[in-house]
Amino acid sequence: MSDLISIDAVFSALEDVRARRPLVHNSTNYVAMSVTANVLLGLGASPAMVHAAEEVEDFVALSDALVINIGTLSPPWVAAMRSAVARARALGKPWVLDPVGCGATPYRTQVAAQLAALGPAVIRGNASEILSVAGQTDKAGKGVDSLSPAEDATSAAAALARRTGAVVAVTGAVDYMSDGESQVAIQAGHPLMPLSTALGCALSAVTAAFTVVRPPQAAAIAALAVFGAAGSAAAQNCRGPGHLPAEICDELHLMNHATLVRFARLSS
Amino acid sequence: MSDLISIDAVFSALEDVRARRPLVHNSTNYVAMSVTANVLLGLGASPAMVHAAEEVEDFVALSDALVINIGTLSPPWVAAMRSAVARARALGKPWVLDPVGCGATPYRTQVAAQLAALGPAVIRGNASEILSVAGQTDKAGKGVDSLSPAEDATSAAAALARRTGAVVAVTGAVDYMSDGESQVAIQAGHPLMPLSTALGCALSAVTAAFTVVRPPQAAAIAALAVFGAAGSAAAQNCRGPGHLPAEICDELHLMNHATLVRFARLSS
Amino acid sequence: MSDLISIDAVFSALEDVRARRPLVHNSTNYVAMSVTANVLLGLGASPAMVHAAEEVEDFVALSDALVINIGTLSPPWVAAMRSAVARARALGKPWVLDPVGCGATPYRTQVAAQLAALGPAVIRGNASEILSVAGQTDKAGKGVDSLSPAEDATSAAAALARRTGAVVAVTGAVDYMSDGESQVAIQAGHPLMPLSTALGCALSAVTAAFTVVRPPQAAAIAALAVFGAAGSAAAQNCRGPGHLPAEICDELHLMNHATLVRFARLSS
Repeated sequence: MSDLISIDAVFSALEDVRARRPLVHNSTNYVAMSVTANVLLGLGASPAMVHAAEEVEDFVALSDALVINIGTLSPPWVAAMRSAVARARALGKPWVLDPVGCGATPYRTQVAAQLAALGPAVIRGNASEILSVAGQTDKAGKGVDSLSPAEDATSAAAALARRTGAVVAVTGAVDYMSDGESQVAIQAGHPLMPLSTALGCALSAVTAAFTVVRPPQAAAIAALAVFGAAGSAAAQNCRGPGHLPAEICDELHLMNHATLVRFARLSS
Repeated sequence: MSDLISIDAVFSALEDVRARRPLVHNSTNYVAMSVTANVLLGLGASPAMVHAAEEVEDFVALSDALVINIGTLSPPWVAAMRSAVARARALGKPWVLDPVGCGATPYRTQVAAQLAALGPAVIRGNASEILSVAGQTDKAGKGVDSLSPAEDATSAAAALARRTGAVVAVTGAVDYMSDGESQVAIQAGHPLMPLSTALGCALSAVTAAFTVVRPPQAAAIAALAVFGAAGSAAAQNCRGPGHLPAEICDELHLMNHATLVRFARLSS
Repeated sequence: MSDLISIDAVFSALEDVRARRPLVHNSTNYVAMSVTANVLLGLGASPAMVHAAEEVEDFVALSDALVINIGTLSPPWVAAMRSAVARARALGKPWVLDPVGCGATPYRTQVAAQLAALGPAVIRGNASEILSVAGQTDKAGKGVDSLSPAEDATSAAAALARRTGAVVAVTGAVDYMSDGESQVAIQAGHPLMPLSTALGCALSAVTAAFTVVRPPQAAAIAALAVFGAAGSAAAQNCRGPGHLPAEICDELHLMNHATLVRFARLSS
């Protein structure tokens, strides 16, 4: 694990994403679609949004990685998500689960738990969501936002990683990657980021892009470091959250080793 | 009513929204989702977009207010909207109706009329929409845009308010709040605003946030004043409508008493 | 045709769009809705997004032109798209087909081929999509992006135009308009444009706006020239793709003869 805790390793993964330009298939929520596509393009990946049962399996076969995000779930979408996941598993393609708002309603919690059991490479959520997927109750969840710091969910993340085999990424003021045995802390993001919608969703898609070129642990660390650094660099140009998504796309497009060094801190 | 016609009262309501950080549950149209979420975050509220019948009632129970916006309506969404409204009424939670495009098609007009009869705290629309919900025909509606000034709909707004018990907000170059007896004019917005999509929808969600901390009359006035002032302040930084939504989010985030005084005028 | 190959003709068409302010009815994908609406508003048109079977036919009757975009297709949407197209044909209203991702999955390819046979005024796509709608296989398609230059699809575009009666617009580094007999090359866009999502979708809607004031050949040429010039002018203010959509809306809003002359080149 210690060789992963390096800005050089993160930057190398980014260069490989840019060289490979992975096709990332998203079945994601309506709010996040546009910013997710733009973030993936800024990163150097190729996004597609495909959700219909009639074509998700065919599209998985074309894609390099899959994102399942339940932000605006409904039964027809969930059924197709399951088909997409089954096909990704059959083909050995990595997929990332974003359990948006897990814990807010029984329907959402049940769907998230079922999906988490289907072998995602990475599960990415805020503290409240990760606690809920792990079967614990967050005292401080509020709709799709978490009021708990990521630290409160690190032991739940480790337990969830051991149970599902997924790497778990918990995001907050500091982000954590857990594979059930080891944990890496990534300090990179900026307090303006939670004030712009769907950036966590976009980060899950960035994580999927990295799973194409790295194993899940290294992919999650690289995604958290690159996206967080882009957010912090972007925030230097912002007086509020309004332009943050556009600035993040620019910073991803321009991301280099120096900006990573400046804004991202990794520690075990 | 006269104590509501004050920038001090508006700013006090804004401070209360920021302190309370209300969870605003939106069942809204696809076009408006992202900008609505970002506007609510800029304001200091917590947005969620939840539309499925399987969870809308549960989500209403968690939320502080509900927005029903029919911009891209279809039967499954409308059925769930009715469930959400029923639950909000049962729990005494305020909800706001945005009858987007009412009058454009019989389906839309019928759905809007049925929803308007279910006790919204506030109905917010342009002149054409308010005339149509009130059962009158606009001579100058065009799709989802109104070609009539808000003034043409103030008597319809008052009649609609008396019939439904809702406060009615009609938006245009000047905005009007009517509770069926009194009327307040709010002059705050900017001519660039209709050239950026879904800002009216976002305003309806802002109104919902204010209904959590104020009665409907004061909530509608505060929302119109704060959002209009944010739009006018934002337009100072724009050479066209492109950056207006991002600038509005920044202005909401930074909104203070002085900006309200500078850009908003209230009159009875 | 030669009288169409003129910046004066393009600018005259733009002035007519602004004067007419056509109502453009879009049944389009979730990712593109917001940027499409904003681009149409920047151009001077009036956008609406309406997709439900319960009202699409009524809305077509109100509208000046229709856009059918299959980016996030599913059976209920496709059924309503067919109804909308049938109504547009019955009423003699122009409609534009954007066969997003055609060739990526059998479902998408089949739906696009069926729609292409229903008499669109214009079909607009990238090289991979046009090759696929024309019944050929692209060696270099990737999800919804094309890896082939537009030049590789010009003979397919001409064949498709002859078979369907539609004008075909193929977009890439250079864009081409074919009516099956003649071809016009439009050099106007900027390499940043493919790095911002859904700009091709927005261009299809711009094309629809122009079909209200010009025959399909001139409409396609004008749309490609105006939108490309807006993109190139916008890119002058960008250090990456993040702000490109907002800048394009501003440039469309401010577009004048001089900017067209500076950034657009037409040739037969």
